[in-house]
Amino acid sequence: MKRDLFKIVKKSEKTKARAGILSLSHGDVLTPIFMPIGTQGTVKSLTFTDLEELNAQIILGNTYHLWLRPDLDVLSSAGGLHNFSSWKRPILTDSGGFQAFSLTKISKFTEEGVEFRSHLNGEKRFLSPEKSISIQTIIGSDIALVLDECLPAEITYEVARKAMERTIRWAQRSKDEFEKLRLETNHYNNLFGIPQGAQFEVLRRESARLTKELDFSGYSIGGVANGGEPEETMYSQVLSQTEILEEYKPRHLLGVGTPKDIVQMVARGIDMFDCVMPTRNARHGSLFIGVGDSQYRTLRILKNENATDFSPINENSKFIELRTYSKAYLRHLFVSKELLAYRLATLNNLEYYLNLTELIRDKISSDQFDSWWEGFCEVK
Amino acid sequence: MKRDLFKIVKKSEKTKARAGILSLSHGDVLTPIFMPIGTQGTVKSLTFTDLEELNAQIILGNTYHLWLRPDLDVLSSAGGLHNFSSWKRPILTDSGGFQAFSLTKISKFTEEGVEFRSHLNGEKRFLSPEKSISIQTIIGSDIALVLDECLPAEITYEVARKAMERTIRWAQRSKDEFEKLRLETNHYNNLFGIPQGAQFEVLRRESARLTKELDFSGYSIGGVANGGEPEETMYSQVLSQTEILEEYKPRHLLGVGTPKDIVQMVARGIDMFDCVMPTRNARHGSLFIGVGDSQYRTLRILKNENATDFSPINENSKFIELRTYSKAYLRHLFVSKELLAYRLATLNNLEYYLNLTELIRDKISSDQFDSWWEGFCEVK
Repeated sequence: MKRDLFKIVKKSEKTKARAGILSLSHGDVLTPIFMPIGTQGTVKSLTFTDLEELNAQIILGNTYHLWLRPDLDVLSSAGGLHNFSSWKRPILTDSGGFQAFSLTKISKFTEEGVEFRSHLNGEKRFLSPEKSISIQTIIGSDIALVLDECLPAEITYEVARKAMERTIRWAQRSKDEFEKLRLETNHYNNLFGIPQGAQFEVLRRESARLTKELDFSGYSIGGVANGGEPEETMYSQVLSQTEILEEYKPRHLLGVGTPKDIVQMVARGIDMFDCVMPTRNARHGSLFIGVGDSQYRTLRILKNENATDFSPINENSKFIELRTYSKAYLRHLFVSKELLAYRLATLNNLEYYLNLTELIRDKISSDQFDSWWEGFCEVK
Repeated sequence: MKRDLFKIVKKSEKTKARAGILSLSHGDVLTPIFMPIGTQGTVKSLTFTDLEELNAQIILGNTYHLWLRPDLDVLSSAGGLHNFSSWKRPILTDSGGFQAFSLTKISKFTEEGVEFRSHLNGEKRFLSPEKSISIQTIIGSDIALVLDECLPAEITYEVARKAMERTIRWAQRSKDEFEKLRLETNHYNNLFGIPQGAQFEVLRRESARLTKELDFSGYSIGGVANGGEPEETMYSQVLSQTEILEEYKPRHLLGVGTPKDIVQMVARGIDMFDCVMPTRNARHGSLFIGVGDSQYRTLRILKNENATDFSPINENSKFIELRTYSKAYLRHLFVSKELLAYRLATLNNLEYYLNLTELIRDKISSDQFDSWWEGFCEVK
């Protein structure tokens, strides 16, 4: 007996924010939630025990990367990514389309799918909507995404419309393949559709309506973080779609964003987030340090002023290592390119992001979100 | 009131092996002991909590590296390496001479000391016996070593004799500086002399006698692992010196070695070991896996046969991560150059080495060493 996928437990009165429970095969996820990125089946530098201590509830895996390495034979023999990576909690996978588009020098989108050359060895590969679903079924993610046509930042209305329409046709093909494989493999995973539409509000709305008609389990809104557009544009693009999508289905926003973006997007009805920012910034020595009501300041550890700052990296961390090691020591590790640097900074930044989504949920649950969120977003 | 530095609690009947307690400012060390290498103030990829869980009792820091980075100003402001690195247990530092000799393209030994150019930025530096002691005093290591003249592997008797004689003169200068700084700083650390002598037994014996006359707290036997010489040569070089040195003083063997070397050297009266082998091999994907009575096999994780080996990395590890993650997963991390790979392999290899020296101590303590050690060394 399958439980309801998503249950809203509390709604904000003045915004579209909501606190919910997402019930997946590998456990419940309390939303809003941030999902750390485990590109190659590992959240860089961390163990599953670290992630459990961070209270990470769901992580993201990249279909493109996992397809190339370790490859489908290994993942299939392992019985899927959960077994392979020893991560027992839920996993969401993307479709692989974005990496096929962004990581490879040569990628060609046709009606059938996308042809590209592996960024690892130049080998020619072909990713179709059906292929993406079959890979994600082998990975065994709790939530799979449909393949969408990815676009560069600056495009004309005509190009955007054609891509949006193709994405809808691909969404239908993805769903057909998913249903077929579901019958064959008897799995209880979920497929999310991807509302697109680039920077055109009319297309955003039409894409949301058409995707909704296909009746997916939830949505991963795509293409809003192409870079360059003003924040407000991004916020209204999302709102124009969450206004259309069913309230009772979970909504994920692909690849966003800063702490402020997350709060803004929760107010516009988003439940799930993923972004490389906390983990990638960590590896470049840029740390989110929480202050007060989960506001934060950025600690750029490589700055000279940290060379003799012997105060703790983060005195409020739950990790004894971050409460004990000094900023001066962490700076030394970064300057010396020592492996430990990346782990410490990654723990710090994911702790901030996961604390933030937990705080947002608490604010919604205790009727404080409406009076809190704009103040949070004003600072910085 | 200073306690005795070293107390022998049990001796083997048929060999020179002994179990002891080394009482240092930052705690007791049970010998024989392996000391993980923390070159730049960090045992690569590990936290102090990892090292505590490994039951590492003492680690080694490299004076050359720490002098260049973070530098003496930072170490001095921090109040020494213990404070800087948050490692509360004992630290031994080398003199810096070996790195000045081996890491730099241009190094010139004169009677005054060694001139070299930093491998980081080419800056000219000068390391004298006095300078080395003053750096090590700032580092605040529990055990400091005298500067010795390092030599290439193949040298003539005349060159070796001159270097040995100079090393004795430098040892006297080191001791003078150490005593002077001890009075000024009121610290209770220890200085070890370095018996040398290259491959010439007559020089080894003479060096041991002359070093002994200088009355150091203990000894770090140097220059026996230059590479290329047969094992038996190395073993007899060491024995020719431990036969001369006072029994009641601790003996460290610099830079040795394989598990078999360690057992062989304990039988010849060595108490303390350091070597890059467990940590460096780890980072190259070569794992020591204990089997039976601390025998081991080598797991070369990158081998194709591990691609679908889903058995645990090390089912007998104390670390849940090593008991849970599979060989196939660790191989994938190495192939993908993921940061986590190095940490897992390092934990595994140091656990083996520290288990080994603990086992050796147990064997000595329970009168089983004499019947055990040769069998251990025969295999492989």
